[in-house]
Amino acid sequence: MLEQLKQEVYEANMLLPKHGLVTFTWGNVSGIDRESGLFVIKPSGVDYDKLTAEDMVVMDLDGNRVEGKYNPSSDTETHLELYKAFPEMGGIVHTHSPWATSWAQAGRGIPCYGTTHADYMYGEIPCVRNLTKEEIDEAYEKNTGLLIVEHFKDTEYMAMPAVLCKNHGPFTWGKDAHEAVHNAVVLEEVAKMAARCEMINPDVKPAPQELQDKHYYRKHGKDAYYGQG
Amino acid sequence: MLEQLKQEVYEANMLLPKHGLVTFTWGNVSGIDRESGLFVIKPSGVDYDKLTAEDMVVMDLDGNRVEGKYNPSSDTETHLELYKAFPEMGGIVHTHSPWATSWAQAGRGIPCYGTTHADYMYGEIPCVRNLTKEEIDEAYEKNTGLLIVEHFKDTEYMAMPAVLCKNHGPFTWGKDAHEAVHNAVVLEEVAKMAARCEMINPDVKPAPQELQDKHYYRKHGKDAYYGQG
Amino acid sequence: MLEQLKQEVYEANMLLPKHGLVTFTWGNVSGIDRESGLFVIKPSGVDYDKLTAEDMVVMDLDGNRVEGKYNPSSDTETHLELYKAFPEMGGIVHTHSPWATSWAQAGRGIPCYGTTHADYMYGEIPCVRNLTKEEIDEAYEKNTGLLIVEHFKDTEYMAMPAVLCKNHGPFTWGKDAHEAVHNAVVLEEVAKMAARCEMINPDVKPAPQELQDKHYYRKHGKDAYYGQG
Amino acid sequence: MLEQLKQEVYEANMLLPKHGLVTFTWGNVSGIDRESGLFVIKPSGVDYDKLTAEDMVVMDLDGNRVEGKYNPSSDTETHLELYKAFPEMGGIVHTHSPWATSWAQAGRGIPCYGTTHADYMYGEIPCVRNLTKEEIDEAYEKNTGLLIVEHFKDTEYMAMPAVLCKNHGPFTWGKDAHEAVHNAVVLEEVAKMAARCEMINPDVKPAPQELQDKHYYRKHGKDAYYGQG
Repeated sequence: MLEQLKQEVYEANMLLPKHGLVTFTWGNVSGIDRESGLFVIKPSGVDYDKLTAEDMVVMDLDGNRVEGKYNPSSDTETHLELYKAFPEMGGIVHTHSPWATSWAQAGRGIPCYGTTHADYMYGEIPCVRNLTKEEIDEAYEKNTGLLIVEHFKDTEYMAMPAVLCKNHGPFTWGKDAHEAVHNAVVLEEVAKMAARCEMINPDVKPAPQELQDKHYYRKHGKDAYYGQG
Repeated sequence: MLEQLKQEVYEANMLLPKHGLVTFTWGNVSGIDRESGLFVIKPSGVDYDKLTAEDMVVMDLDGNRVEGKYNPSSDTETHLELYKAFPEMGGIVHTHSPWATSWAQAGRGIPCYGTTHADYMYGEIPCVRNLTKEEIDEAYEKNTGLLIVEHFKDTEYMAMPAVLCKNHGPFTWGKDAHEAVHNAVVLEEVAKMAARCEMINPDVKPAPQELQDKHYYRKHGKDAYYGQG
Repeated sequence: MLEQLKQEVYEANMLLPKHGLVTFTWGNVSGIDRESGLFVIKPSGVDYDKLTAEDMVVMDLDGNRVEGKYNPSSDTETHLELYKAFPEMGGIVHTHSPWATSWAQAGRGIPCYGTTHADYMYGEIPCVRNLTKEEIDEAYEKNTGLLIVEHFKDTEYMAMPAVLCKNHGPFTWGKDAHEAVHNAVVLEEVAKMAARCEMINPDVKPAPQELQDKHYYRKHGKDAYYGQG
Repeated sequence: MLEQLKQEVYEANMLLPKHGLVTFTWGNVSGIDRESGLFVIKPSGVDYDKLTAEDMVVMDLDGNRVEGKYNPSSDTETHLELYKAFPEMGGIVHTHSPWATSWAQAGRGIPCYGTTHADYMYGEIPCVRNLTKEEIDEAYEKNTGLLIVEHFKDTEYMAMPAVLCKNHGPFTWGKDAHEAVHNAVVLEEVAKMAARCEMINPDVKPAPQELQDKHYYRKHGKDAYYGQG
């Protein structure tokens, strides 16, 4: 069932340790097959060096496990809410990558200080609030998803494929699992450079809007001219 | 004698350089066999790339070397006092891992700024005071152990499996040697992210108590649902 | 056509990931053959681990692609303007290397705090201004080149083989592609140490001029005595 | 001639890139044979990955090249003055290792904040002043050596086997070339942790003297009990 997607999601998961984004099992990647409405996600707490494509868990959008011998990632309900709300998302990543998580812990969005950021993400990377005690007690992972949905609904969410959850860490997404991981790597680089940039110049201001526009639209949209497209 | 434990403690020691926690010989791991009351510890000052399982030293809880051709780690008396006071400890680690040691040198406990920390350690990671000159002169390593015992007695010490010794460095523990190393890795990640988090937002506050509770109890205790347990 | 130069430029490009200067495709190296007036540059958006010498694109100084199946780097027009203005440049590099980019994002030139810097670059590494909206809209990459030309014209540009573009990142150059990469590595090291140096001593001043002179001229010019020359 | 020493000095040089202390050729190690009064040093500007034991240069203490096809390191005169003044030095290292160099650029000595430092180096690691223009013009490398000699004469220089030269970088030494490299690694770790420690607590004070004494004398002198000695 969904063998190709399982392979893709498995490979996308394995890119997390390759890019230094995870310690132990602190991350998970999923990918969705929009036709069947099923998504594939990493099992919970399984070591990356023991993971196989067959270990991937297949879920439906009602939260039922359709296939797989393992429990799905404990963050599955968050992924599910995002897939339900945002039809263009094809893959989702959650990590505790150190620089992005440091910003999340600091409770700050990441201003766009340069073209590395603007090449992939349009504007400030938002940091959403803590859940209330009631929201945590009721359904922590689901409400984390709904909070992100609340923030991004009615926005061009594919132009800002990343969010920080306060005191927690980042989620990123993309048109598929691989692109979601790509954006997780970008986020970590951008988070690192933004922190250092503020260290070098505490009064730094975001990059001019016209520069942000230029770089974003050089790589995205109908007039893009970066790459071989 | 205790061949399996020696192998386990040896492997746990070898994880320290693998995870980048030690330079040269600056670290040691021990594990205890509660039935016999004997513990196994790394020999003092032996290079990791020359270490074998056979080099491990077997000690009793009176501080006698029961087996082994080498002197045990110079920190053996500290391990011993912890094993005597805390029956649930099955393994102990000492390192000079850079970020945790920087906090120890700074003389500050590590506030819980996020879920990475709360997933493993409940509350602020404490930094215990310097020993007095008298305590150092009398029995430095033993008194280091007694100071940690003083701090953790009558607490749920397995819910805070780490301590910083001021101007020195960290000790961590777990139900066995492997888990103690796991916690040493967590501590280093948490110490790194907490320092960067304060750099990004000097006014940062600890994570809300309800979020700390949620993450700690998601992974620990009778209602845990993380992983495949 | 220009097989040797293509091989050289290919190898110089491959040094960028080797030295940790690029994430994904965020960098490009070119080299020029002054006799024919043709230069060779990395194709746009091609992964480093798939790159071959044959993929290199040959351009003339009017911006025409002379050979190659791929589009050239999106920064080609910047390289071109530099080659036209500065006859001693034989190779040019652009990266988003993290420390240099952090300074560029901070909008600050890098003061010469020590001999590591002075050994290769004479004086403060400049940070040129943002382009205006008009300059961006008209011809972004070309005007980036012209802005650098404006800054360095009538200077000894081979004695300061690096520049930071505000909110963007660095360009470096050298007598050939390999030396340009060498200078990109130096720049990243120097940028890292300058930021840390200011962290350690916020009131730090640049190195004395006589020390800068000594180190620069120990390695460059007619009285150089470093190395085996 | 001195084949064993050349091999030792070669191997010690190769440890510099292994431990991440050098970029390109920015470092050199020497070792002396006190009986013959000859010392062996790395050639100037030769890449580490092309270096062989045979490339090492043999010098006498008058600064004459006794054997070797290459020019000796440009810092040879500094090594020579140290060997002449300090009979217990058997090996000397110079690097531009990033954290130690950042402190040197900042013009500050490194306070002893903890036991990692105290285990190897007794007290604050000194930062010596800039040379004057006259001293630079007259004999830069030799006067760098004489300045270090001036600072350490009449001290127990083997108990503080490191110095920072302002706006330049560190020198370390030991009883042989290998121990000098060992101390260069220690210095870099200590420099890193001291900078981070000040970031975490700007009001931090050095470790208590009794703790510094305990750790230094636990590893050195007649009552040492660390290791297998």
